[in-house]
Amino acid sequence: MPDAFSFRLLATDDAARRGEIATPHGAVATPAFLPIGTQATVKGLAPEAVRATGADIVLANTYHLMLRPGAERIASLGGLHRFMNWPWAILTDSGGFQVMSLSHLRKIEDKGVTFRSHLDGAMVELSPERAIEVQHLLGSDIAMQLDECLQLPASQGELQRAMQLSLAWAERSKRAFERTGGTALFAIVQGGDDLRLRAESARVLTEMGFHGYAIGGLAVGEPQQVMLRIVEAVASALPAERPRYLMGVGTPEDIVEAVARGIDMFDCVLPTRNGRHGLAFTRFGPINLKNARHADDPRPIDEASSSRAARDFSRAYLHHLVKANEMLGAILLTTVNLAYYQALMADMRAAIAAGTFADFRAAARESWARGDVSCS
Amino acid sequence: MPDAFSFRLLATDDAARRGEIATPHGAVATPAFLPIGTQATVKGLAPEAVRATGADIVLANTYHLMLRPGAERIASLGGLHRFMNWPWAILTDSGGFQVMSLSHLRKIEDKGVTFRSHLDGAMVELSPERAIEVQHLLGSDIAMQLDECLQLPASQGELQRAMQLSLAWAERSKRAFERTGGTALFAIVQGGDDLRLRAESARVLTEMGFHGYAIGGLAVGEPQQVMLRIVEAVASALPAERPRYLMGVGTPEDIVEAVARGIDMFDCVLPTRNGRHGLAFTRFGPINLKNARHADDPRPIDEASSSRAARDFSRAYLHHLVKANEMLGAILLTTVNLAYYQALMADMRAAIAAGTFADFRAAARESWARGDVSCS
Repeated sequence: MPDAFSFRLLATDDAARRGEIATPHGAVATPAFLPIGTQATVKGLAPEAVRATGADIVLANTYHLMLRPGAERIASLGGLHRFMNWPWAILTDSGGFQVMSLSHLRKIEDKGVTFRSHLDGAMVELSPERAIEVQHLLGSDIAMQLDECLQLPASQGELQRAMQLSLAWAERSKRAFERTGGTALFAIVQGGDDLRLRAESARVLTEMGFHGYAIGGLAVGEPQQVMLRIVEAVASALPAERPRYLMGVGTPEDIVEAVARGIDMFDCVLPTRNGRHGLAFTRFGPINLKNARHADDPRPIDEASSSRAARDFSRAYLHHLVKANEMLGAILLTTVNLAYYQALMADMRAAIAAGTFADFRAAARESWARGDVSCS
Repeated sequence: MPDAFSFRLLATDDAARRGEIATPHGAVATPAFLPIGTQATVKGLAPEAVRATGADIVLANTYHLMLRPGAERIASLGGLHRFMNWPWAILTDSGGFQVMSLSHLRKIEDKGVTFRSHLDGAMVELSPERAIEVQHLLGSDIAMQLDECLQLPASQGELQRAMQLSLAWAERSKRAFERTGGTALFAIVQGGDDLRLRAESARVLTEMGFHGYAIGGLAVGEPQQVMLRIVEAVASALPAERPRYLMGVGTPEDIVEAVARGIDMFDCVLPTRNGRHGLAFTRFGPINLKNARHADDPRPIDEASSSRAARDFSRAYLHHLVKANEMLGAILLTTVNLAYYQALMADMRAAIAAGTFADFRAAARESWARGDVSCS
């Protein structure tokens, strides 16, 4: 495997870790949050606007891009970085999660998944080898193995079967990655809410050896305390010298709690999707701009924010834009939310480096619980 | 009337005019194009992005803003400039045009218009006095008189009636404006495609005395040659020392031809609306990004553009965004189009100042007619 990828652990504070991932497309400071760029765009934001929120890396969805515009087309246009004009790091998922959630007709076999495209109804095959090939065509900095992700609750038998299948696919993904070449390949620990299965998955994947390790199959319907118990157990079972990535998580509180348990990377649709639906994440908890109480409120979302979207526009104006279904409402609130998430990550990185993460965590909780200041 | 508004004629080249309007919110170089900010936002662009395209002034719609969020509310929040965070000049229309085009139930009487809100069905009255009051509450730099605008073709009798009503409303608008105060009030010449009615309207309005004169009731279904004949006749009948504004026009060619006939200001939904629907305006004519021929085209829209939206993204990527219905497609193409329109205005201003407008006009026509260069 090439040397372009590396992970350095810069500081620890109890289980929390401050690190840096090197990629051919720049450094990623960890703990890191990855905005979702499903169809080769973070919805509503030009790449420079995404960068301005503080993002070092975005996530793009293999499932969507292989169907439209097609991985071979993106490769012939110079790869995903050039296609979307994002010169920084990109992580691609394997496509497996969307096959499960978006495609109604699908068949899971040992060889891979066959599914019907949600766009044109065509039958498409996705094997561990094809998932790696597609991610190679995209030019991903961090590729993910194909895995099978179950909704929770699920039976122990189902969890075991899916975990074992994911291990077999991890092995095949690794062999395929070694053939195609690429920057980095992460494995995905599965096993649902069964700690014994999770431990087995983590152990076997660590023995195989990957550039990093993700925890999949969480934030799929289980209570937060269940998620955090699994995260804590799996993180402590993974090698300290590799980055750990909690997929699809989460709220600001989820993220702080997972960082406290040793997680380095996160992705989630919440800041972007909720922003499009009128919700702002702030230091003082979420604000629903649809609410009529904002109609006459001249205050910005957060005058102390580093983001102009949070400082330069009144809540009254944002309320108006959201009610009038104006694109600019979605754009500004997406910006506000991504800037808040990135500021949260930066603050955590600083606290870990300073050895004050416990204080930061307590202060963040207190601030969220306090809620938004009342209207003047 | 206050002195904050002025118009200086800096150069002429045959009938074409290069000028500058002073307002309390900055200078407006003319010929000027006003992007449409209907609901207190140019759809899809933050104010700084609108400014970056080269706009000195935007148009906001009185009809929409009086219904939502309400003119009194905007006034209590510090006025429209602060509300939408646009510190540059704003022209507001009178609301009359949207009453005619958006509201199905309406009654036009001498006293004004009564209509049913398209939002909540409430009956709303709009008189010349109320239109001025609303625009004063918004804090408009250039207010427009209430007028009645007919679709063409229309009978001579109907055209005469609407023109006379608009004259009476102009007189009342002026008196109301003198009571409320404000920066500038423009009258609107009506009379449809009847040159005699147009001349009468222009003569009476000039005698009344306004800060500027608009030509309304064009670009409402008539052929371009009819529109230009009216424009030429009306422009030459208006006082040289006041700005002339052709409302709701138009394509790049319409605008160049109207500048050649002495028009100073334009507004139109084409660059923004068509941008949202996948169409790019360029030096070489329009490009429909929906077309499959762009799917593999690595070229930008126009590498010589001053706009990064036109330089930094491939046609293949824009095609993908448009096909995938991604907001960023609308955002980038709106930016491309507004930047092209503003560059066209800037080029015309330079040509008029240099006395080379006839050459510029011929070269622009040739370039549009040449069409887009073929795929490589």
